[in-house]
Amino acid sequence: MKFVKMQGAGNDYVYVDCFKEEVKNPSEFAIKVSDRHFGVGSDGLILICPSDIADVKMDMYNADGSRGLMCGNGSRCVAKYAYDHGYVKSEKFTMETGAGIKYIEVDAKDGVAEYINVNMGKALITSEFPEKILINGEEKEFIGIDVGNPHAVYYVDSLEELKSMNLEKVGEYYEKHKRFPDKVNSEFIYIENRKNIHMRVWERGSGETLACGTGACASAFATMKKGHCDTNVRVHLLGGDLDISLVNDEVYMRGKAEYVFTGEIKF
Amino acid sequence: MKFVKMQGAGNDYVYVDCFKEEVKNPSEFAIKVSDRHFGVGSDGLILICPSDIADVKMDMYNADGSRGLMCGNGSRCVAKYAYDHGYVKSEKFTMETGAGIKYIEVDAKDGVAEYINVNMGKALITSEFPEKILINGEEKEFIGIDVGNPHAVYYVDSLEELKSMNLEKVGEYYEKHKRFPDKVNSEFIYIENRKNIHMRVWERGSGETLACGTGACASAFATMKKGHCDTNVRVHLLGGDLDISLVNDEVYMRGKAEYVFTGEIKF
Repeated sequence: MKFVKMQGAGNDYVYVDCFKEEVKNPSEFAIKVSDRHFGVGSDGLILICPSDIADVKMDMYNADGSRGLMCGNGSRCVAKYAYDHGYVKSEKFTMETGAGIKYIEVDAKDGVAEYINVNMGKALITSEFPEKILINGEEKEFIGIDVGNPHAVYYVDSLEELKSMNLEKVGEYYEKHKRFPDKVNSEFIYIENRKNIHMRVWERGSGETLACGTGACASAFATMKKGHCDTNVRVHLLGGDLDISLVNDEVYMRGKAEYVFTGEIKF
Repeated sequence: MKFVKMQGAGNDYVYVDCFKEEVKNPSEFAIKVSDRHFGVGSDGLILICPSDIADVKMDMYNADGSRGLMCGNGSRCVAKYAYDHGYVKSEKFTMETGAGIKYIEVDAKDGVAEYINVNMGKALITSEFPEKILINGEEKEFIGIDVGNPHAVYYVDSLEELKSMNLEKVGEYYEKHKRFPDKVNSEFIYIENRKNIHMRVWERGSGETLACGTGACASAFATMKKGHCDTNVRVHLLGGDLDISLVNDEVYMRGKAEYVFTGEIKF
C-alpha cells in the first residue's frame, strides 16, 4: 500500500490516496500504521477519497482504529493533497467529513497550496462565562466551547507558567472531571496581546498533543468573546501556528500543511 | 533520499542503502528523520555501507545526531538487509562497526534471513561486583559491563516493580551520574528463572527504548556471572525477545529483524 505522511502543526497522519488505492479494512490498517515502532508511526490514518456530495472526502481513523469525525489539521492536509494533485479544480472547494461538509480555500503559489483556510462552522458557548470548577481541590475558571467537539478553555498569567505546567501529571483531572461526563478537551491559554495567544492542549483520549485545530478555534473564540483579542488572532501551539478568525459568526482556521515523506508498506 | 524502516525487537531505525545512495551530512539527517512527528520517526539512522575490511559496514547515528558505535538490534537489521539483497555471499560473514568487526551467521529460509546470530565479542566487567552508587540520594547496586559500549545493570525484585518504574522521571539521573563521565546505558533486570530474565533499558542519548541489543548482552552476561542464570538465556524486552548465550567467553545474540516499510524523503 502506497501512502504519504503529512503533518499540520505537528499533528501527523498517514494519508492514502483513494483516488488510486483501495484500503479494504481501514480500521485494522489504522492500528497497524499508527504504531510508532512497528508501523509507520502517526496520530492515525486519513483516506483521501472521491465524494458524491462534495469535491473531495476525508475519511478518518484514530490510532486505535476508531472512526474519527473531523480533524482540523487533517482537513488542511487533505485539502493540500487534493489541490496539489489536481483532484479539485479551483482554489475554493468543498470537503465531505464525518462532521458535515467543510468549505475550503487555498492560497496557492506556483500551483501548490501554501496556506489552507477552513471554515470550521459556528462555535457555541456551553458554560457560564466564565464558570468556576474545582480541579483536584483547586478552584479554576474555564469557558466551555463546542466546535463540533467539546472544549474547556483555561487561562494562565504568564508564558512561563504555561510552559512549566506538568500536563502529564494533571491532564487527566481536567479531562475526566465529573462536570464533563463525556470527557473534554482542555486548552490552557496565555494571552500575549490582542493578536497573539499561546496554547497547550490536553486532548481527550490522546493526552497532550503538539496541536489541536478545533482546540485552537475554541480558545480563540473564547478569548474573542472575552474581548481580550481581536477577531483574527494567531494561536501559537507547540507544533506550529494557526490563524483563527471570526467572520459572520463563523470560525475560520488558516495554516500550513506539509508533506513529510512518501512510503509503501505491506498490507 | 530513499530509505527503509526496519526494526529488531522494536528498536527501529531508518536504514539507507549506501551501496546505492550517498548521505552527505548523516548527523543532520539523523536528527531530521528521527523526529516522530516532523520526520520519519525512529531511534536513529543507520547507513548500510561497503567496507574495506569486512563484508559490510554499519555506520550508526543516534536520534540526537551523535555517532553510535554499535547497536546489536541494528546489526541484525544490517545483516538481514545485506544478506537479502545479495551484498554478502554466504550465511557467515563479517560486519565492520564502530566497535570493531562483528561475526554474523544467518539462518535463512527461501533465500531470506530469518534469524540472525551476532558474535558480540567479549564482555568486560568494569565495576566492583557489585558496586554501590547513590542515585538521586538513594543507594543502589549495579554491575558495570562493557560490550563495546558502557552499561550499568541494576536488579529489581519483582516483575511488578520492573513494570511500574517511572524511567521517564528517573532515567537521566542514571544516565548522567558523575560516576559515568561518558554517560551510560542503564538496564533494569528482573530474574524470572535460570532461562528467562526481563529487562527495561534507558539508553544514553535516547531515553527509554523498547529494546537494546548490547544492553541485553550486558544484562545476560552480568546475570550469568552472578550465577543466577544459565549460559544461554532468553531476555524479554518491551519490544520482543532476544536469546543471549556465552560460548568460549564470547557473547552471542540471536533474534529476528524485520522490514517495516520503504520510503523516500527530501533531504
